[in-house]
Amino acid sequence: MFGIKVLRSSVRTRRLFRARFHQLVPMQSKSTNPAMQFPCLDKMEELSEQLRNKHGSCPRVDATSSPNNEPNYGRVRSGFKVYKSDQPLFLDYGGVLPKFQIAYETWGNLNSDKSNAVLVHTGLSASSHAKSSPDNPQPGWWEKFIGPGNAMLDTNEFFVICTNVLGGCYGSTGPSSPDPADNSPYATRFPMLSIQDIIRGQQRLVEENFGIEKLYASVGCSMGGMQSLAYAQQFPQGVEKVVTVSACARSHPSSIAMRHAQRQVLMADQHWARGFYYPTPDEPNKILPHVGMKLAREIATVTYRSGPEWESRFGTERLNDDRPPVLCPDFLIETYLDHQGEKFSLEYDPNSFLYLSKTMDLFDLSKSHQDRSNRRKAEAQRLLEDGDSSEKPVRLCDEPYEPIKKRRTTTVEESREDLRKGMESIKDKNLLVVGVKSDGLFPYWQQREIVDLLGNGQNIEHVELDESQSLFGHDTFLLDLEHVGGSIGKFLRKGQVAELNTI
Amino acid sequence: MFGIKVLRSSVRTRRLFRARFHQLVPMQSKSTNPAMQFPCLDKMEELSEQLRNKHGSCPRVDATSSPNNEPNYGRVRSGFKVYKSDQPLFLDYGGVLPKFQIAYETWGNLNSDKSNAVLVHTGLSASSHAKSSPDNPQPGWWEKFIGPGNAMLDTNEFFVICTNVLGGCYGSTGPSSPDPADNSPYATRFPMLSIQDIIRGQQRLVEENFGIEKLYASVGCSMGGMQSLAYAQQFPQGVEKVVTVSACARSHPSSIAMRHAQRQVLMADQHWARGFYYPTPDEPNKILPHVGMKLAREIATVTYRSGPEWESRFGTERLNDDRPPVLCPDFLIETYLDHQGEKFSLEYDPNSFLYLSKTMDLFDLSKSHQDRSNRRKAEAQRLLEDGDSSEKPVRLCDEPYEPIKKRRTTTVEESREDLRKGMESIKDKNLLVVGVKSDGLFPYWQQREIVDLLGNGQNIEHVELDESQSLFGHDTFLLDLEHVGGSIGKFLRKGQVAELNTI
Repeated sequence: MFGIKVLRSSVRTRRLFRARFHQLVPMQSKSTNPAMQFPCLDKMEELSEQLRNKHGSCPRVDATSSPNNEPNYGRVRSGFKVYKSDQPLFLDYGGVLPKFQIAYETWGNLNSDKSNAVLVHTGLSASSHAKSSPDNPQPGWWEKFIGPGNAMLDTNEFFVICTNVLGGCYGSTGPSSPDPADNSPYATRFPMLSIQDIIRGQQRLVEENFGIEKLYASVGCSMGGMQSLAYAQQFPQGVEKVVTVSACARSHPSSIAMRHAQRQVLMADQHWARGFYYPTPDEPNKILPHVGMKLAREIATVTYRSGPEWESRFGTERLNDDRPPVLCPDFLIETYLDHQGEKFSLEYDPNSFLYLSKTMDLFDLSKSHQDRSNRRKAEAQRLLEDGDSSEKPVRLCDEPYEPIKKRRTTTVEESREDLRKGMESIKDKNLLVVGVKSDGLFPYWQQREIVDLLGNGQNIEHVELDESQSLFGHDTFLLDLEHVGGSIGKFLRKGQVAELNTI
Repeated sequence: MFGIKVLRSSVRTRRLFRARFHQLVPMQSKSTNPAMQFPCLDKMEELSEQLRNKHGSCPRVDATSSPNNEPNYGRVRSGFKVYKSDQPLFLDYGGVLPKFQIAYETWGNLNSDKSNAVLVHTGLSASSHAKSSPDNPQPGWWEKFIGPGNAMLDTNEFFVICTNVLGGCYGSTGPSSPDPADNSPYATRFPMLSIQDIIRGQQRLVEENFGIEKLYASVGCSMGGMQSLAYAQQFPQGVEKVVTVSACARSHPSSIAMRHAQRQVLMADQHWARGFYYPTPDEPNKILPHVGMKLAREIATVTYRSGPEWESRFGTERLNDDRPPVLCPDFLIETYLDHQGEKFSLEYDPNSFLYLSKTMDLFDLSKSHQDRSNRRKAEAQRLLEDGDSSEKPVRLCDEPYEPIKKRRTTTVEESREDLRKGMESIKDKNLLVVGVKSDGLFPYWQQREIVDLLGNGQNIEHVELDESQSLFGHDTFLLDLEHVGGSIGKFLRKGQVAELNTI
């Protein structure tokens, strides 16, 4: 109704407006309405300036330092041990790591027959610091899930190992590590990794460093849940029990799409510089692409939580309803995302983020995928051992890609059968699969699919948390001690303890 | 198993590797693995260069031209008519448009008692060109849904009007239009609009230009479906039937989060320049933030379609499995998103995108929202009419925002009751609500909510398309002639034609 009122009163208004309009405007440097302010952009520019002036607060590699000097990222700067392998690791996509190191931490004691080891696999951005320790008293990312007498991982009972994944930046070899060829950071000369490559690195640590032939359990959530499945697939004799939470047997195009967006946004930051943003003696003022990283993390955060949680926490309230809306964060949900992005933007190496994000996209347990990987690795190794000195074996990706096809060439059914075949070696494992109904990134049907593909065997347990149990979406595994922690604890003890409740 | 084989054969491999490693590397400029190529980034840089050199292909405003010369964007450069109002439009958030114009097109003929007009409201990025015409033979965005004898909008029967929304860039006043104060583009001096502001502009066109007192129907999808509800709310006597497809009564924090990400990504493009990217005589080489725009559209595209559609269309196939993965588009789904983003990046004004995206976030039919808006407009108008010459009335947003609260302050129930009250005026309208189960951006429960809030009256019809009817997600309304078009056609004829099937 008000619109009509404005319209009806418009003759008078119009006259008055005309009269005053040109009096008003010059007072405000010739603009009908005020120019919008962008405090969020000002802040980012100030941060760039600070990073340029204070190298200490910026993740960096000193190119003149030894290869062992890993850059100092965010939360975990100490308190982990390092396993080093100077044997080359041939990789699924044809690359090679001539040598590598894996940062790890342990809690509890390995028993005499080495039968109580539980390997905890992390999600994309986590360090080996799952739990506080004398060497690093900071709370770990799974602090409440591990400890003496803990209902999930009781360190009086289990010897818990957690590593920083290959490709990461918390002490393990990744894109920020020096390439032995020239002692400068690998940057985007780092070879692409598969989840299987990551667990093959971990398996060397398990076997060579600890002399463990068989893990009691391989436990992981999100990207860690991909690793635990891959561990069972690659080393079926090397693990007794397998736990996979909020993960999948193969990435879905929707998840790839969300991660694609994150990567492209990060790569568009001019400071990313095609991955070569690490300061060098020649260019000491390079800064990391913190804006791209912040934005990528904001997009990721959208996929980590659920709509219903945000509805109850933020609704559609704005910071201040009495002020006109702005394009910088204004709704409560926006300030939350902004804060999450900002917090992360200096904590993690952008190249590690890009590589591991892509590694998740590529995750696929199918038979054809394994066969191709084995062929590539064998070929690279054969060429090296046979003395073919051409540069081919580890040099396969120089030409730009051309869109040569626009639709899938296999049917959904063929592809599913391929996946089923690829999972044969897991079929007889004791497996716990946990899914969360409110998870939009790894939706519950992906966990159902794992169970279905493995034939719904008696050795497979499936727990699905509905919305009444968790509204925390994909992040549930970080927060839900009762349902996630409880289910894992019971599963790990099953067969050990007589009086078990059903899960 | 292969991993173990690599491990076992590693002593020999290691020796050979050591021997050859330093022979191989110098051939490839000292790098263990090849540096990754970034053809996607090369392409964007080339495009920037082209835009700098060829101003003609870049959307621009000639600052010396008259206010009537709208910039030439993308698809629609001609064939529309323009309604001009030189009466100020006071806006819900305290701003003002001293004068404005609305681009529109029509199909069919207005009957003698002016009772057959159907106003079609568009989604965010659409122009007035819903249907081809002699003035513009290009197919429109709803080409198959409108025409003589058409089952949805039969132009033998209806007089169809479609406008470009205020804030847009296809002929209506928006951020790229000249601010009358200095004849330069408004840019981010453009005032924030509400959906209600947009329909108040349209209502002037309907009443002043066509002399129509009551529309036969107000029809819209997505942001258009917000407009049709707002039209019924603001002008309950001005419309007979209302159709809202894939829309909502209030935006949800999840949708706000996705649009927030798009805006922040676009604003981070250095070429965006806080909105002042339009070339000027002083700076003729400015280019539009096409990279930010491309990325924003890629994120948007993720929200427009559905996972199951992508699964059947792309799966997880890559362009070429024989080549190592790259960080530029590599999976089929990535090339699709890349293409969608690129296509859009030069077609639409980035500032229009930002403003209208925020306008969608702000959409809220609740009573408190209306009350605040009416207070703000009345105050601005009163101050002007009463001769208060201070700069306050239309100048409210100069200070940066501070996070003063972190959680919502009203309960979900209070907020729902507020919304119910705000929709009272729509309650007795003939209303068709269409939802799509595969829509992730405006999920089906938001359409159910509209129906529930309006009390499930007999005058309200609700159609919900399940996955067997459409896998096209939010974009269904652009594609589904049978279910969307068919439902709307039947609803519009109901009461007119005797023999009606149920929908």
